[in-house]
Amino acid sequence: MSTTPEHVTVIGLGNLGRALAETFLRHGHPTTVWNRDANKADALVAAGAKAAATAEEAIAAGDLVIVALLDSTVARRVLAGAAGAVAGRALVNVTSGGPEDARELAAWADEHGARYLHGAVYAVPQTIGTAGSSISYSGEETVHRRWQPLLDLLGRGTFLGRDAGLASGYDVAILAGMYGMIGGFLHATAMAAAAGVRATELTPMLLSWLTDSFPALSTFAEEIDSGGFSGGESSLAMNQAGLATIIRASRELGVPVGTLAPVKDLIDRQIDDGHGAASLSRAVESFRSAA
Amino acid sequence: MSTTPEHVTVIGLGNLGRALAETFLRHGHPTTVWNRDANKADALVAAGAKAAATAEEAIAAGDLVIVALLDSTVARRVLAGAAGAVAGRALVNVTSGGPEDARELAAWADEHGARYLHGAVYAVPQTIGTAGSSISYSGEETVHRRWQPLLDLLGRGTFLGRDAGLASGYDVAILAGMYGMIGGFLHATAMAAAAGVRATELTPMLLSWLTDSFPALSTFAEEIDSGGFSGGESSLAMNQAGLATIIRASRELGVPVGTLAPVKDLIDRQIDDGHGAASLSRAVESFRSAA
Repeated sequence: MSTTPEHVTVIGLGNLGRALAETFLRHGHPTTVWNRDANKADALVAAGAKAAATAEEAIAAGDLVIVALLDSTVARRVLAGAAGAVAGRALVNVTSGGPEDARELAAWADEHGARYLHGAVYAVPQTIGTAGSSISYSGEETVHRRWQPLLDLLGRGTFLGRDAGLASGYDVAILAGMYGMIGGFLHATAMAAAAGVRATELTPMLLSWLTDSFPALSTFAEEIDSGGFSGGESSLAMNQAGLATIIRASRELGVPVGTLAPVKDLIDRQIDDGHGAASLSRAVESFRSAA
Repeated sequence: MSTTPEHVTVIGLGNLGRALAETFLRHGHPTTVWNRDANKADALVAAGAKAAATAEEAIAAGDLVIVALLDSTVARRVLAGAAGAVAGRALVNVTSGGPEDARELAAWADEHGARYLHGAVYAVPQTIGTAGSSISYSGEETVHRRWQPLLDLLGRGTFLGRDAGLASGYDVAILAGMYGMIGGFLHATAMAAAAGVRATELTPMLLSWLTDSFPALSTFAEEIDSGGFSGGESSLAMNQAGLATIIRASRELGVPVGTLAPVKDLIDRQIDDGHGAASLSRAVESFRSAA
C-alpha cells in the first residue's frame, strides 16, 4: 500500500518512537525527529530523517506529530516547552499513561489550538509496522480520519470514541489483566518446578486450560455488566474451596502465595457478606467495596 | 463406543461423583455408590445404581473404585475406615489435593494391597462424559492401562508418569495459573468500569491480547527451564515501568491494587538484586528467594 508523502514528526526516540519513525521513513514520508538525548537520532538521520534541535522546531516541521515519550509527566513537560508550535497540528500521543493523563493533555491541546488523538499501542517495538501490531485511538475523530492512511502503516487501528481517555482506559485495564495472567503463570511454573515438572512441560497444558476458560470469562463479563450474579456453574463457595486447596498445596511445595492470596481475599469478602452461592464474577464487587 | 460391562464403585456423590456414576450407568456398567449422606444416592439408584450401606461394602463390590470426595482429609478418613476391602482393588482417586496428599495415599494403598492411580479432572461436573472433559493420571500405569476403556468414558485421559503426585502437581500449578488470570480479569473489569467501559466491551479485546501473549509465555518457559534469563524482548526494567503506570492508573481510578502489587513485588525484587536487563521470566526466581 503506498501513501502520499506527508510531513511527519516523531517526538521521543525510545524503542517505540524509533520504530514509529523507521516505519514512516520506510514508506517515504519526510520525517523530523527529536529526542532529549540527540544521539538516539543518528541511525534515523542516516536513514533519511531530519533531526530537529528542539521539540518546538520538530513540531513546527510536521503536519502529523506523534508523541512517544517515557511517561505522561515527560510528555506534559516537553509539550509545554513547545506550546508555541502546536496550534493547527494533529497531535497523536502514544505515550503510556492513565485515562486522566490523556484527558488532561487533550484539554491542554484544545486550549492551544491543536487537535488531540490518544493512541494505545498493543505491540512490542519490534512488531510496529507489521500485522502483529494494533493501536486503539480515542479523542478527535477528525484526526483519526484525516491521518488514517499513515496511522495504518504502524499497525491495525481502531477508533474507540471521542473521550480522549478511552484508549488509555482500555489499555491500562487490558494490561492489568495481562499482568494478572503473567503473575499466575510465574506462580504456576514455580509450583511445577517444586513438584518436579518442567515449565516447558507445564505451559502447553496451562495455555490450553486458560483458553478453555475464556468462555467462562465472557459469561462473567455479562454477569458483571448486568449485575446478575445469581446461579451460574461456578459459585464463589466452590472457588473458595478450590483456591484454598491450591494455596495449601503451594505452601506445602514451599512456594509463597503472595500473588494468589489476594485473589482469594476478593472471594472471601463476598462470601463473608453472604454471597457464597453467587457466581465467582461477583468477586469484582470486592474492588468496589474496598475502594 | 461400547465397553464390556464391569463392576464399578463410586465413593463420594458430590457434583463430580454423581456425574462420574451417571456416566458409568449410562454406558451399562453395574455401579455401586456410597455417600455419607445417603440421600445423594437416590437419583442414581433410580437410574440403576446400587447404594451400599458402608464405604467398605461399596469398595468390596467394585473391581474399579473411583474416589471423589470433598478433599484429601476426607478421602484419607473414608479409605482408612474401609481398609479391609481395598486389597486387590484398583483405586482411582480424583479427589482434589496437592502432590503430597496423592503420594501419601499411594503409599497407604500400597501397604494395603491396592493399586493406586491419581486423577486430576479438568472439567466442570456438567461436562464429565463429554469431549469437554479431560483427566490427567499418574501412579500405577497398569491400572491406567487395564481400566482405560472405562476411564476414557469420563473424558480424554492422559497418563503423566509413575509418581502418583505428578497429576496433582500439574493440576494445582495449572489452577494457580488460572486463578492468576481470573484475578487479572476481575481487576481489568473493575478498572474498565471506573473508566466508563463495560466488561462485555473490554473482554473480547482482553482475551485477544491474552492469546497474543501466549507465545511470550512459551518463551519464558524455555528461559525458566534453561535458567538463561539474559536478553529477550521484555526486560524486567521495562515491565517494572509499565506495571508502575498501570498501578498508578488503577489508584487514580479508585481501584485497589491488592492483586497487582504483589506481581510488581516479584519484579522489583529481581531488579533490586541487579537484574533489570534480564527477561521478565526471571521474576520466577522471586518465589524461590522468598520461600
